[in-house]
Amino acid sequence: MEIFQQLDLDAIVKRALDEDLGQGDITTAATVKPGQRGRARITVKEPSMILCGGILLERVFSLAGATPKITSLAKEGAQLAKGDIVAHIEGGLAGLLIGERTALNFMQLMSGIATATHQYVEAIRGTHAKIIDTRKTHPGLRAVEKYAVRCGGGTNHRFGLDGGVLIKDNHIAAAGSVRAAIEGAKKITPHTIRIEIECETLAQVEQARDAGADIIMLDNMNVESMMRARQLAGDKIILEASGNVNLDTVRAIAEAGVDLISVGAITHSARAMDISMRIES
Amino acid sequence: MEIFQQLDLDAIVKRALDEDLGQGDITTAATVKPGQRGRARITVKEPSMILCGGILLERVFSLAGATPKITSLAKEGAQLAKGDIVAHIEGGLAGLLIGERTALNFMQLMSGIATATHQYVEAIRGTHAKIIDTRKTHPGLRAVEKYAVRCGGGTNHRFGLDGGVLIKDNHIAAAGSVRAAIEGAKKITPHTIRIEIECETLAQVEQARDAGADIIMLDNMNVESMMRARQLAGDKIILEASGNVNLDTVRAIAEAGVDLISVGAITHSARAMDISMRIES
Amino acid sequence: MEIFQQLDLDAIVKRALDEDLGQGDITTAATVKPGQRGRARITVKEPSMILCGGILLERVFSLAGATPKITSLAKEGAQLAKGDIVAHIEGGLAGLLIGERTALNFMQLMSGIATATHQYVEAIRGTHAKIIDTRKTHPGLRAVEKYAVRCGGGTNHRFGLDGGVLIKDNHIAAAGSVRAAIEGAKKITPHTIRIEIECETLAQVEQARDAGADIIMLDNMNVESMMRARQLAGDKIILEASGNVNLDTVRAIAEAGVDLISVGAITHSARAMDISMRIES
Amino acid sequence: MEIFQQLDLDAIVKRALDEDLGQGDITTAATVKPGQRGRARITVKEPSMILCGGILLERVFSLAGATPKITSLAKEGAQLAKGDIVAHIEGGLAGLLIGERTALNFMQLMSGIATATHQYVEAIRGTHAKIIDTRKTHPGLRAVEKYAVRCGGGTNHRFGLDGGVLIKDNHIAAAGSVRAAIEGAKKITPHTIRIEIECETLAQVEQARDAGADIIMLDNMNVESMMRARQLAGDKIILEASGNVNLDTVRAIAEAGVDLISVGAITHSARAMDISMRIES
Amino acid sequence: MEIFQQLDLDAIVKRALDEDLGQGDITTAATVKPGQRGRARITVKEPSMILCGGILLERVFSLAGATPKITSLAKEGAQLAKGDIVAHIEGGLAGLLIGERTALNFMQLMSGIATATHQYVEAIRGTHAKIIDTRKTHPGLRAVEKYAVRCGGGTNHRFGLDGGVLIKDNHIAAAGSVRAAIEGAKKITPHTIRIEIECETLAQVEQARDAGADIIMLDNMNVESMMRARQLAGDKIILEASGNVNLDTVRAIAEAGVDLISVGAITHSARAMDISMRIES
Amino acid sequence: MEIFQQLDLDAIVKRALDEDLGQGDITTAATVKPGQRGRARITVKEPSMILCGGILLERVFSLAGATPKITSLAKEGAQLAKGDIVAHIEGGLAGLLIGERTALNFMQLMSGIATATHQYVEAIRGTHAKIIDTRKTHPGLRAVEKYAVRCGGGTNHRFGLDGGVLIKDNHIAAAGSVRAAIEGAKKITPHTIRIEIECETLAQVEQARDAGADIIMLDNMNVESMMRARQLAGDKIILEASGNVNLDTVRAIAEAGVDLISVGAITHSARAMDISMRIES
Repeated sequence: MEIFQQLDLDAIVKRALDEDLGQGDITTAATVKPGQRGRARITVKEPSMILCGGILLERVFSLAGATPKITSLAKEGAQLAKGDIVAHIEGGLAGLLIGERTALNFMQLMSGIATATHQYVEAIRGTHAKIIDTRKTHPGLRAVEKYAVRCGGGTNHRFGLDGGVLIKDNHIAAAGSVRAAIEGAKKITPHTIRIEIECETLAQVEQARDAGADIIMLDNMNVESMMRARQLAGDKIILEASGNVNLDTVRAIAEAGVDLISVGAITHSARAMDISMRIES
Repeated sequence: MEIFQQLDLDAIVKRALDEDLGQGDITTAATVKPGQRGRARITVKEPSMILCGGILLERVFSLAGATPKITSLAKEGAQLAKGDIVAHIEGGLAGLLIGERTALNFMQLMSGIATATHQYVEAIRGTHAKIIDTRKTHPGLRAVEKYAVRCGGGTNHRFGLDGGVLIKDNHIAAAGSVRAAIEGAKKITPHTIRIEIECETLAQVEQARDAGADIIMLDNMNVESMMRARQLAGDKIILEASGNVNLDTVRAIAEAGVDLISVGAITHSARAMDISMRIES
Repeated sequence: MEIFQQLDLDAIVKRALDEDLGQGDITTAATVKPGQRGRARITVKEPSMILCGGILLERVFSLAGATPKITSLAKEGAQLAKGDIVAHIEGGLAGLLIGERTALNFMQLMSGIATATHQYVEAIRGTHAKIIDTRKTHPGLRAVEKYAVRCGGGTNHRFGLDGGVLIKDNHIAAAGSVRAAIEGAKKITPHTIRIEIECETLAQVEQARDAGADIIMLDNMNVESMMRARQLAGDKIILEASGNVNLDTVRAIAEAGVDLISVGAITHSARAMDISMRIES
Repeated sequence: MEIFQQLDLDAIVKRALDEDLGQGDITTAATVKPGQRGRARITVKEPSMILCGGILLERVFSLAGATPKITSLAKEGAQLAKGDIVAHIEGGLAGLLIGERTALNFMQLMSGIATATHQYVEAIRGTHAKIIDTRKTHPGLRAVEKYAVRCGGGTNHRFGLDGGVLIKDNHIAAAGSVRAAIEGAKKITPHTIRIEIECETLAQVEQARDAGADIIMLDNMNVESMMRARQLAGDKIILEASGNVNLDTVRAIAEAGVDLISVGAITHSARAMDISMRIES
Repeated sequence: MEIFQQLDLDAIVKRALDEDLGQGDITTAATVKPGQRGRARITVKEPSMILCGGILLERVFSLAGATPKITSLAKEGAQLAKGDIVAHIEGGLAGLLIGERTALNFMQLMSGIATATHQYVEAIRGTHAKIIDTRKTHPGLRAVEKYAVRCGGGTNHRFGLDGGVLIKDNHIAAAGSVRAAIEGAKKITPHTIRIEIECETLAQVEQARDAGADIIMLDNMNVESMMRARQLAGDKIILEASGNVNLDTVRAIAEAGVDLISVGAITHSARAMDISMRIES
Repeated sequence: MEIFQQLDLDAIVKRALDEDLGQGDITTAATVKPGQRGRARITVKEPSMILCGGILLERVFSLAGATPKITSLAKEGAQLAKGDIVAHIEGGLAGLLIGERTALNFMQLMSGIATATHQYVEAIRGTHAKIIDTRKTHPGLRAVEKYAVRCGGGTNHRFGLDGGVLIKDNHIAAAGSVRAAIEGAKKITPHTIRIEIECETLAQVEQARDAGADIIMLDNMNVESMMRARQLAGDKIILEASGNVNLDTVRAIAEAGVDLISVGAITHSARAMDISMRIES
């Protein structure tokens, strides 16, 4: 459940702090004595949420100059309730105050995504399908958002344009046909990567199957069409449902026999979780 | 209504494209012929929304290599309805496809914020108060999000920790008293910047007034307390209401006589707008 | 055959020029008059080579300040002979001289790799197998080296650690067993990515097959073992041969029925091609 | 024998790791348990090689997150044989696996260059001449490659265009004459830097001498011409031989009385050394 | 008195070291043995100066690789005399020599600015006015120069174009009138920022006052005009004097009743202080 | 007289603009209409100065978004008088106002250095010696400051630690003796670089000569000692005078027979030139 790539995280965190800090925190400089220490408590203010982002606290407060000591850190992916402790942080008071908003901004976003994902995952519990994310993320934050999806129990779709092939209607049109597009892709795609194609009709599903697609995305199909698509595609082809997915519809879609259900809203429109930090002493 | 700072935008756009593109778009490389041109149409799929982010289309598609020609670009801040055209873009087909998601990711976020802001602005139309944003933004995207707030008719609070002084309870505790905190701030703050202090009680409002605060933030007060705070503070001090603000409560707060109402949700939890791009030819 | 990802190339080229230029080209400053124009000719000095890297000339000489006009540019992947013209470049003489070594350094490396790859590709012509590269590249140059492999007729393995799963002996040991490693990978790998595992014995091949591996790398096996591995693996599993591959052995390996033959030497030890630039006037 | 400039090395190492890691090492994430430790052994698989690059192990594995402890590290420049230990590294198993290829990619390149250089140095042992490198290096890797040349017993030519003056035929043509070029250089070159000029004929050697060149590069001359050039140039002028240098010809060139022999092949075409890493436990 | 923003300082220091070090310190590599330790003493060679920049010693010598231990470090802002110790630094001798010039270059500049500022501050001691800086700083060094002004007892004007509004004659002309400019600014300026306007005449002062300016800069006015401006502006408006300020005129200006006196010369033309470093052992 | 290295200049200019602009120029956004054009005039306000930095105007105003058209640009190194035009710039008014201070900050510094250098150059006109700079520059600005020295008629010393060898007392101590230090340097220094050593006594001059120094810096010697040093060193060794150089002493030093006179004050303490920009329309 840890973040795959460690190297870029520092850059993301540093950029966020830089953005907030600019030429420096005047308020803190005016009110905190040099060397003053403090102890902060981060708590949940939501009735229920899946925690995500605690993993960044160390980095944020270190970069903010607090030389933090973090204790009672709740587990990533844990389900927390109102008043639960996310972490205690002891460190330089100036650094704690400088890093506060940046730390909370990451956690409120990431926990929001994890929580939204979790709701979808729960909604299809017991079925064969998995909830996956999309590329509809906040620019520059995809790594942390895809990690949040994993924390919420979801699975990741390709990270970006280089991590998979996904042939859409515009690509089919450009290539001339479903077959031409799939064959073009087979020629240049590394063998480690599967070829996925978006189909809007069952006729396209058949063409895609015959041309050797590894994965078929069923775009905005109704449940009946999805069930029929499964019959046409057989067992070897991975089926992904996309479009018109919400908490009311997701279970029926899962039961239609698809392998994956992608949901844009879990990243692009998840509500931020209410998490607060308070200095205890 | 244009974005203040132009220099960093290229960096933000480039970072977003880099993130999505990684080692390159295999699908497009497999299906689009070198030199192939295309024409894309971006349209609204929401019943109603305030457009924001069209200003970035040129940059996104240029960086994506499309050498784009953009026409019929709708105005930033315009209220658009389902089916309305955001823009037509002519250019290299590969570049159009490469830039598509990045362009839409920016616009769905920025238009979402502008639309949410607009709802609050409408809700208090006719009162003296202004809707302002907070620092509860997505890490790394504050510049575009604060711009979106302006597009939606809102006003910006300080950009970050260096653009204003905002003394909160923790700062007061660190300094020893309201007076000590304000006097500390007066000593080091450039004269171009006003001093704001967060007050939770009317007693604190009086202390802040007596110590020479320029702005007082009323934290989670009810409407009656806000009206009383206005009487205590007089006309010279700027009053900002914060906390418990939603579309149901905002008008009463505005009518209580505050100058500013800050709303975190317009940036941290605005729903993404549904905007799509299609290749016409 | 074009480079997938365009954005980073400027960074790679700029870094190379910066490295060579440092505080500036004293020699050129001392000998070339401001505004002086020139025309350069780049020619092949090898008996035979596959050209790769001409695509970077525009960038190198633009960044070097030559405002170049490039003509008679030979095609990427073309087989050229001694004396053949790679390109003519007209532009500011200072910029031409400043960019010369950087341009040649890229082309001598990339053409070297393309030429080496081409030799392997030719050696197995008519068989079913493909030549693929490895991650044994020069640090910081993987994108251009993998592109050079494609120019030489080869195919790319995964770009890096995030573009595929390749379970090696150390991973098997860490996970506890072949099955545990493959199942661990299935749980977190995006569905767009296949799972590959390295096997040193035929027993491992059977375990990998039974655990559901998508690709099996046959590590340092002899031809007989490879043929047997094909029988064990069946048709659905992709087989990659690795180790002990050279121009003498490669055809027999290809004929053993593997799908892919990976060759580290085509990137890590390809001889640089001799290419020179001369100012004509 | 240490690398002169320490600051940029982190950037080079980080860039290499970033390139390989991208969004993260899926395989390791799937197979290694959090907190799992390991011990790796790096060994030589060549009959004989000059080690170079061990100095980077600490940086690579630290950046890869292994918090490594390195022991029995062989000396830079040491001559090692098959099976010799380069180093033992104890640390987080995930970090060891993540950093493995990057560490080996640096060492196989750098040891390759050091070994190639060493062969030339041995070939002229006992003569007055020194083996030097050129600017024909891999873009972005010049600092480590020039260091590898030193490890192999060679000496460095100028690092780049700002570290020396080297007037070539194109510069002479641009300036109008050998004398004009040298005088132009004398006017603007810092006094800490010598002026070198490339001569293709003995007549040019005389002109260069008369115009006050500090160093003369003898371009593609045969041994007899080089001996004559020494007579013409006298003792004060440094002579560099360039072109047609290989292990068969280099000793005769050295004995012709030149001070320096530059060899492009030691950097641009050195064969990568076979070095491997294995997890012991 | 500490520097507000800590994050960027490392970048400034690293850039300075990079600039000086380039490919490495050849002299030190040639003369210092690996592992050799040393102890340096930094002393003042001016009759009297205000120290500024000691705060950077740790960073400079750490980045230079000295793993420094700094003792007897004089306080920032302290008034020192010839021969006084600024600091003792023990560490790797190579790192001490590599970092020497960079450390001194920062300190000679910053102490120069602090000392110049201090002279102005002393000259107006006892009056109500404060000495403030301007944006006339050395490109890229504003953060350290504004900090040096604070060390010398001065106060900072806005950091840059985003930290305040300062309407000058060109802005007035563009907007059409003093009133139009001020009203335009009121509409978009965050409430945390005051609006300042430059006035060249008393008539403009009246207009600015009537349009609601928060701060008026009196541009190149004589003392009589400044006194009159105070009468016109009343007590609520902050007055800044600018232009024709030197050590001879500054006290009379302060006594004219302005709140702030801005002096460009304290940053753009302060004489560098003579500070030297010597290795003791 | 042009700046050697073009690549980094954009970075320096961009950094300076970023520093000043931060989140954007509020004042200009408030007062200038979108699309408004303007014409600026830059003029000299000093009785006499050497212009330097006009070469950067194009870059500054382009980056500031003005799409500038520059006319009547005075020549770099020209001697200008009060009221002389430096340049006219036509372009977007917002961009002109945004870039103004950054452009002037560069020019006031660079012209200050060029002017100071010119005074020293004039003071020794007719002698054999040259005025050279030192490494006592403003951190991050060395490239433009060394260029300014050239514009003023001076010559550059080594750019940084990698562009020359300069053995100082601390290096001698570390190496053990003058001879050991020089021999150490000879071993590792590229042949393109001369070896310089600082001597405080005539005895040291003799040792340095005997050990084969190429250049001797005479540190704080009086004129008589310098004349004697010339006799001891002979004609082949380059002599540099350093220390106690000012406009009163420099001519006598030049006449003592040294080749070079280094002056730190021309870069570290040159007074900024008064240059202003006005919008004409």
